[in-house]
Amino acid sequence: MGIFKDLESNVRGYCRSFPVTFVKAQNATVTDSDGNEYIDFLGGAGTLNYGHNNPAFKQALIDYIEADGMTHGLDMHTDAKAAFLEAFRDLILEPRNMDYKVQFTGPTGTNAVEAALKVARKNTGRQTIISFTNGFHGVTQGSAAVTGNGYYKKASGLPTTGVQFMPYDGYLGDFNTLEYLDKALEDGSSGLGHPAGVIVECIQGEGGLNVASKEWMQGLQAICKKHDMLLIVDDIQAGCGRSGTFFSFEEFGIEPDVITLSKSLGGYGLPMAVVLLKEELDIWGPGEHNGTFRGNNHAFVTARRALEEYWSDYRFAEEIQHKASVIRRRLKEIQAENGGTSKMKHKGRGIMQGLEFANGDIADAITELAFEHKLIIETSGSDGQVVKILTPLTIEESKLSAGLDILEKCVAQVMSEQVSKAS
Amino acid sequence: MGIFKDLESNVRGYCRSFPVTFVKAQNATVTDSDGNEYIDFLGGAGTLNYGHNNPAFKQALIDYIEADGMTHGLDMHTDAKAAFLEAFRDLILEPRNMDYKVQFTGPTGTNAVEAALKVARKNTGRQTIISFTNGFHGVTQGSAAVTGNGYYKKASGLPTTGVQFMPYDGYLGDFNTLEYLDKALEDGSSGLGHPAGVIVECIQGEGGLNVASKEWMQGLQAICKKHDMLLIVDDIQAGCGRSGTFFSFEEFGIEPDVITLSKSLGGYGLPMAVVLLKEELDIWGPGEHNGTFRGNNHAFVTARRALEEYWSDYRFAEEIQHKASVIRRRLKEIQAENGGTSKMKHKGRGIMQGLEFANGDIADAITELAFEHKLIIETSGSDGQVVKILTPLTIEESKLSAGLDILEKCVAQVMSEQVSKAS
Amino acid sequence: MGIFKDLESNVRGYCRSFPVTFVKAQNATVTDSDGNEYIDFLGGAGTLNYGHNNPAFKQALIDYIEADGMTHGLDMHTDAKAAFLEAFRDLILEPRNMDYKVQFTGPTGTNAVEAALKVARKNTGRQTIISFTNGFHGVTQGSAAVTGNGYYKKASGLPTTGVQFMPYDGYLGDFNTLEYLDKALEDGSSGLGHPAGVIVECIQGEGGLNVASKEWMQGLQAICKKHDMLLIVDDIQAGCGRSGTFFSFEEFGIEPDVITLSKSLGGYGLPMAVVLLKEELDIWGPGEHNGTFRGNNHAFVTARRALEEYWSDYRFAEEIQHKASVIRRRLKEIQAENGGTSKMKHKGRGIMQGLEFANGDIADAITELAFEHKLIIETSGSDGQVVKILTPLTIEESKLSAGLDILEKCVAQVMSEQVSKAS
Amino acid sequence: MGIFKDLESNVRGYCRSFPVTFVKAQNATVTDSDGNEYIDFLGGAGTLNYGHNNPAFKQALIDYIEADGMTHGLDMHTDAKAAFLEAFRDLILEPRNMDYKVQFTGPTGTNAVEAALKVARKNTGRQTIISFTNGFHGVTQGSAAVTGNGYYKKASGLPTTGVQFMPYDGYLGDFNTLEYLDKALEDGSSGLGHPAGVIVECIQGEGGLNVASKEWMQGLQAICKKHDMLLIVDDIQAGCGRSGTFFSFEEFGIEPDVITLSKSLGGYGLPMAVVLLKEELDIWGPGEHNGTFRGNNHAFVTARRALEEYWSDYRFAEEIQHKASVIRRRLKEIQAENGGTSKMKHKGRGIMQGLEFANGDIADAITELAFEHKLIIETSGSDGQVVKILTPLTIEESKLSAGLDILEKCVAQVMSEQVSKAS
Repeated sequence: MGIFKDLESNVRGYCRSFPVTFVKAQNATVTDSDGNEYIDFLGGAGTLNYGHNNPAFKQALIDYIEADGMTHGLDMHTDAKAAFLEAFRDLILEPRNMDYKVQFTGPTGTNAVEAALKVARKNTGRQTIISFTNGFHGVTQGSAAVTGNGYYKKASGLPTTGVQFMPYDGYLGDFNTLEYLDKALEDGSSGLGHPAGVIVECIQGEGGLNVASKEWMQGLQAICKKHDMLLIVDDIQAGCGRSGTFFSFEEFGIEPDVITLSKSLGGYGLPMAVVLLKEELDIWGPGEHNGTFRGNNHAFVTARRALEEYWSDYRFAEEIQHKASVIRRRLKEIQAENGGTSKMKHKGRGIMQGLEFANGDIADAITELAFEHKLIIETSGSDGQVVKILTPLTIEESKLSAGLDILEKCVAQVMSEQVSKAS
Repeated sequence: MGIFKDLESNVRGYCRSFPVTFVKAQNATVTDSDGNEYIDFLGGAGTLNYGHNNPAFKQALIDYIEADGMTHGLDMHTDAKAAFLEAFRDLILEPRNMDYKVQFTGPTGTNAVEAALKVARKNTGRQTIISFTNGFHGVTQGSAAVTGNGYYKKASGLPTTGVQFMPYDGYLGDFNTLEYLDKALEDGSSGLGHPAGVIVECIQGEGGLNVASKEWMQGLQAICKKHDMLLIVDDIQAGCGRSGTFFSFEEFGIEPDVITLSKSLGGYGLPMAVVLLKEELDIWGPGEHNGTFRGNNHAFVTARRALEEYWSDYRFAEEIQHKASVIRRRLKEIQAENGGTSKMKHKGRGIMQGLEFANGDIADAITELAFEHKLIIETSGSDGQVVKILTPLTIEESKLSAGLDILEKCVAQVMSEQVSKAS
Repeated sequence: MGIFKDLESNVRGYCRSFPVTFVKAQNATVTDSDGNEYIDFLGGAGTLNYGHNNPAFKQALIDYIEADGMTHGLDMHTDAKAAFLEAFRDLILEPRNMDYKVQFTGPTGTNAVEAALKVARKNTGRQTIISFTNGFHGVTQGSAAVTGNGYYKKASGLPTTGVQFMPYDGYLGDFNTLEYLDKALEDGSSGLGHPAGVIVECIQGEGGLNVASKEWMQGLQAICKKHDMLLIVDDIQAGCGRSGTFFSFEEFGIEPDVITLSKSLGGYGLPMAVVLLKEELDIWGPGEHNGTFRGNNHAFVTARRALEEYWSDYRFAEEIQHKASVIRRRLKEIQAENGGTSKMKHKGRGIMQGLEFANGDIADAITELAFEHKLIIETSGSDGQVVKILTPLTIEESKLSAGLDILEKCVAQVMSEQVSKAS
Repeated sequence: MGIFKDLESNVRGYCRSFPVTFVKAQNATVTDSDGNEYIDFLGGAGTLNYGHNNPAFKQALIDYIEADGMTHGLDMHTDAKAAFLEAFRDLILEPRNMDYKVQFTGPTGTNAVEAALKVARKNTGRQTIISFTNGFHGVTQGSAAVTGNGYYKKASGLPTTGVQFMPYDGYLGDFNTLEYLDKALEDGSSGLGHPAGVIVECIQGEGGLNVASKEWMQGLQAICKKHDMLLIVDDIQAGCGRSGTFFSFEEFGIEPDVITLSKSLGGYGLPMAVVLLKEELDIWGPGEHNGTFRGNNHAFVTARRALEEYWSDYRFAEEIQHKASVIRRRLKEIQAENGGTSKMKHKGRGIMQGLEFANGDIADAITELAFEHKLIIETSGSDGQVVKILTPLTIEESKLSAGLDILEKCVAQVMSEQVSKAS
């Protein structure tokens, strides 16, 4: 592993928490160079909803490569792209009565967010974007500006421009934060002016598994309509099934103006990102937002296969929801066994749940101990205080149980050490 | 092809110039869904230096996939990454006496540029970046700010912040533009203040194949040192061999503080990007610049194989230089046959050459006609007035000749039509 | 009056509400070119705390002019400036145990605010300033950025940079807005980052006579200390006695890091502005914030005389407080006579009180009718919905009564017309 | 003088160069508290074109004060304002066939510049302003952004936004800087985009007495028209007669879209500023750019008298031009006597001339020595390398000679010391 220390920049992050070299992966199991097997509750930070190297897509990818299918084609037409678009229309958009144009952006989530912000500013001729406390949208300059985390913001070296932050659902306890937003928008002297739009996650992954309620999201959409602002839902982490449905907002009955997708969209962990935008907002000029890798055809192949395999009917959604309920039950049990709500708080929904502890040190201790027990799991939240389960949606039930068992043990051990320390 | 029109955003670009569906590709030949074969002088806009689906990497990639090697691992250690780093050190850095840390950014060029700008601002605590006329560095907010093209800048909807533009080599005719830059930096009242750094391409690809001279680049480095500013060379399009050497600045004897690479780095057209930075500049905190797809292991596999295959000795560089001289000779001939320097100007170096015409309409007419003759070639420059050859470096000599023959024919036809029109 | 219409820009404002030409003024009485006399409840928007052409300063000014005292001296030493500084130290700073350096800025309030923002940014090396809903701080670019009013913000044509808005005291009803501010500052992912400072008015004049409580201001100071941010109190409108004490925060027991003063500071309505800053914050280089009219010596002469005449003992403060209580009582009566709190809301404190109506149209109708009855009074608030009394503090009690009588009559008439209209 | 050291901020500047206390002033003579008399070649940095305490305006001001004329009236109509407007129309605008609306801004130059920038951005809907090397326009945020001097820019703590700098006339030696500007505007990829306008001084006062030629200014206007950008001439220092005509551009035959005036406009050294704008650009809403002291009636009184006294015929212009030629001759003599053009360079025009030395140390030594000899004179330029004569235009010829004699002596002494030092 010396090569990493010698040559790789200090910016490397996850490898510090999991200091081994991984060589093989299958669904929720990864193997290191010593042959140790780990249960993966990290799930590529939401990129591996269908597991590592899903066999259902693997052969399609190999076949495509063997046939010398276009690998790189800028944004030119390819049969792989056409097939993906058809599957996306037939399996995702049409069954949900969703009418959107698909923009392929550079194959990173932040690139999709940058494009979405441009859509809002370009269509309205306005500049301010409303973002929410604990929102995370990426670290390129435009995305970092709408990201709450000061660590990333500061790294850009430039002041936040054209962005105002508002409190997310629940941020002010019982106070309805939408009341504040609506009042400030009604009030010409609130400092908000007339924003171009709002960017929001239905479940804040990096932000600590904060969940927006159906009422809040509906209210937010109503406020956007009332004040003629675009509603951008950033579904990069919470989308592609993680919440229990393909989009994280499906059960809310809302219709965002713009949606960003990435991470698990490519299916096999391959880079891909799109912006979905209402047709009337599609005023882009040719190539106005561009990028070399917009057309990652390998990802188109696996993305299409993922849609066909998992979203042709509702069985996969039911499976996710079942596992989500298992996780919820187990986390509540862990909570109950270890001091209850005064010690830890259950957070999240879908297979995007976790436990919030008093501080990041406790959470770190748990994830470090878990890794010793061959469970890969990370923290999130502004202080890293939330232990977050983002395991593949396809995880075998036995593996899920095994992973939760490890987690349970680790929480118990760390919490009892906390008690010892305190006394 | 209706699916594209129905569903894909208006932002799609290249597919408008080449309105067919591509299904297969090998080296410099691509095939459409009707079985037509095209010679590729576009080369994925610099991404396909080793050609489409290079057989030397293809099997390695298939083998890796078949073995369930890690496909997605965030920025965790994998054997594929280690192997790439070792090859990069042994075949690229060490033989050139280059001492740099490698930062894996999100796998797009613009992401690497965003990271490079942060490196400059973070290390100096200053904000202004000097960029050059006709420079192109990407379209996310930070990169668009240092990009000269107003079409992309305007799309961001925000004013340029923390960037001042200076004239590139040759922009003011015989006047040495570095004199201006140096004077303005010496002069505390020039409006430049004390910049954090400079970002520059040795050959401006999108900007119209403008070439910086050795003296100019050396002078620029000297100015950067004198004024304590970082020199960032954006080698995303001109790097990876396109100029005739691996880096576009090798023959200049300069040592940039920061280098960005992407496009052909992945070898097979797969998304990948890195920032090379001097060790003393590597003050990043863990994950301070992050992204889901930093570790695109498929690209690591093919990138490593590309280095091994083409950069273990100097034969490939010689081959490139030979082809470059063929192109130069043929373009000069085309120029001579069609009215000489008053009608068109030879531009570029390496396999990044072209002809500049009086306006974009002429250039468009040529590339459109070329496509009818099954040659894929694009334009660049602020008015699209430069017909640009970016063919794979690995193109068969016969294909290269065939492509140049088509180009010759098209130029002749369009120029003679111009004459007819004018009379 | 044709000359104004012909030649003056459409930007002219107050003259539209009071479309006569004024030729003479004494204390709270102004006279137009037809000899009509008006009671002045506008008070130069807070500039005429000592009335128009106060005889106590008039002769000193004439004497100074007649003696050819320095009128314009950039920021050079003059006897007039020395005398002002001595009076300010002896009568204002020392009796209040306040230890501040005095910076003479360009003689406008907004120039003092611009300087104060620089003090915060320069001392902390940070960029974000927290400002509050409905705050008004001026219309030059830096000040407009911290001003809530979108009409002024938009005019600058640039997006707000380096500023985040927070809800002022009372903005969220019973919810303590400081809880939100403190939480967002504790939370590294709130989007606030680590701000340089906070700018706040104790009474928001233009914002609609919103009043911060003692507890809120104390809490705000505590938050600033806790998070190492500078507290800037903009006392341009509420200072110089208007609140009942010289500074608007005197009774709060707080000690701002930076204070801005202007408007009534010059005493005679002459342009003057200062920034008071803690000595340790005085890291300015010579001339680093400059301006041609920083040393308006005429204003120094009258400003000194104002301090001597009114602030040598506590009688003036008592007089203000007495008049304030009269105004309060009368406004409450007017409220009671016209439908009570459901129809209008009492706002403000000191001689900076008013009535908030359901909308700006009602308030406009009242002030227009008042002008017909020879009372000059203006509205404020984001919709212009607050009728605002800013009469000279020195107004004769009989004039004050007479003005309040007119106001009473006008409110009654307009409110009864409202009732008629509604039925 | 201890009070200044004790209480005044370190930001004080001029008083450091002239460390006495001034108590009296008449035309070009100022007197300190010890009765010493000085010749004033500083002229309030261009504010005292009509000398200190001009007797022609003095009585009018006293009369106005004695009659209790409106001193402060926000932007309401007053007879003093009407009289100023009439005089400005009759004596300045109409004789020059100039058709402009007059906007009274806050009474500082920087406030007028801020308003002018808004006019450009508001009318075009664009954001970028072109400014020139060594331009000085003020230190509030908007003005500082278009100011070249890094010392002032840095103090704002925010990066320059929406501004691109271009080389002023002569900045690149014989290279015509307008060629660069025009090329960059034609070139959609130059980084300039489509700017809103250009701000320029015909003579750069703070920038070191750089002079734009007639051809250059005409060319600049032509470029502005060609590219549909507004031409803003900042005539704050060079206007009001200093160049030899009322406006500094009169002999150029150009017609700026927007003009800023301040400094000497008030006539008596009193704060006042205006923006002149073409009627079709006057799309301001009421009060959209506002400020408490826009209507400084004392300044209106003296400003009107100044126009009547000096601009009713061409005698004053002739007088200025005569004195300017005296200054030019004497400076050329001083140059010739002290080593010629290799040692110092004559700069400027009108009564805005000076000598540029090799560095700021030499210039400082000269002005310090001059002050010992009772001549008040300052330096300008980015290194303070230019000794600058800005004496009142009304200076007695004998005083002018006497001042030039002192300057001659001081230059000779300092230059001979330079020679000694060097050997």
